[in-house]
Amino acid sequence: MNIGTYSYEEYVHLVKSFHGSMAPGLLIGGFIVDLAMKNLPEGEFFDAICETPVCLPDAVQLLTPCTIGNGWLKVLDFGRFAVALYDKDSGKGVRVYLDSEKLKNWSEAWSWFFKLKPKKEQNSELLLGQIKEAGHNMLSLQPVQVDPPSLQRKKLGPVAICPACGEAYPARHGERCRGCQGESPYL
Amino acid sequence: MNIGTYSYEEYVHLVKSFHGSMAPGLLIGGFIVDLAMKNLPEGEFFDAICETPVCLPDAVQLLTPCTIGNGWLKVLDFGRFAVALYDKDSGKGVRVYLDSEKLKNWSEAWSWFFKLKPKKEQNSELLLGQIKEAGHNMLSLQPVQVDPPSLQRKKLGPVAICPACGEAYPARHGERCRGCQGESPYL
Repeated sequence: MNIGTYSYEEYVHLVKSFHGSMAPGLLIGGFIVDLAMKNLPEGEFFDAICETPVCLPDAVQLLTPCTIGNGWLKVLDFGRFAVALYDKDSGKGVRVYLDSEKLKNWSEAWSWFFKLKPKKEQNSELLLGQIKEAGHNMLSLQPVQVDPPSLQRKKLGPVAICPACGEAYPARHGERCRGCQGESPYL
Repeated sequence: MNIGTYSYEEYVHLVKSFHGSMAPGLLIGGFIVDLAMKNLPEGEFFDAICETPVCLPDAVQLLTPCTIGNGWLKVLDFGRFAVALYDKDSGKGVRVYLDSEKLKNWSEAWSWFFKLKPKKEQNSELLLGQIKEAGHNMLSLQPVQVDPPSLQRKKLGPVAICPACGEAYPARHGERCRGCQGESPYL
């Protein structure tokens, strides 16, 4: 059983190295991305949508050319365990999601996903085993039509120097950079 | 000259494989993260803040344990070319930024960063050469104090099944998932 172009063992190694641990969500995520890649829409270039910021974006970044930094991956805060890959030009794509109906067949994965057990009562080995056994069988796939312009990253536009901090920032943000407009995370 | 634990050549290879191309921003980003890592605050664990979604998050993801999916990397849309690494508990950290004053010493890098030339008139070789030559010398460093709770990812909380799409979502989002509340990116 392969995940993307990797063997299962290679994928586990990659996940541990990049993400820090073999999270169950990254194993399901590997199968989600794998299934989506195998059903890619026609077209030369595709972008990705990940419908949760938790775990799943790392599976997309490891298995596709789409990353946060290159702008080909958009992360939405919907809390749905789903990934869509779509052609940049036509917007035609495929969406793969964790299917609750199918998940019912794997008790440990079900109770993990719906948080029915305290973490310390979870059986990690059984959980990962069930996910590995299920592979694509807890997932469903649907065609989607995306509106690519609505997801495009805004052009940076002209660059200005902030009169408050002296750093460069996009002039369209206003007379000062956002950090100096009170949004700074620093005390 | 190393970037993180990699040789320059290894880093270039890694960037091409993960990000897709050797973007000038990822080369500067490599030096930014490298300088921040060398001045890490005391403490066992650190989180990262990246002040722009463009390019720079990938340098953080490649060179630190912090990724989008594991939640240790926060991306802010300030459009400032800066990264902060800070201790999760104390909030003490270090911020490294591209210093406009210092950048003046490298003409091709200056005109690239401030968009003074159309892309086709840029000299890529000269640009990357200047960035490589500059290394840490176009950067500055400052101590920062972060308020960690304000940046913590909200707990997912109880999971519900959306009556509209049938998929699992965080119950705190409301009676339906956000996708079914009109925020869907699909037509």
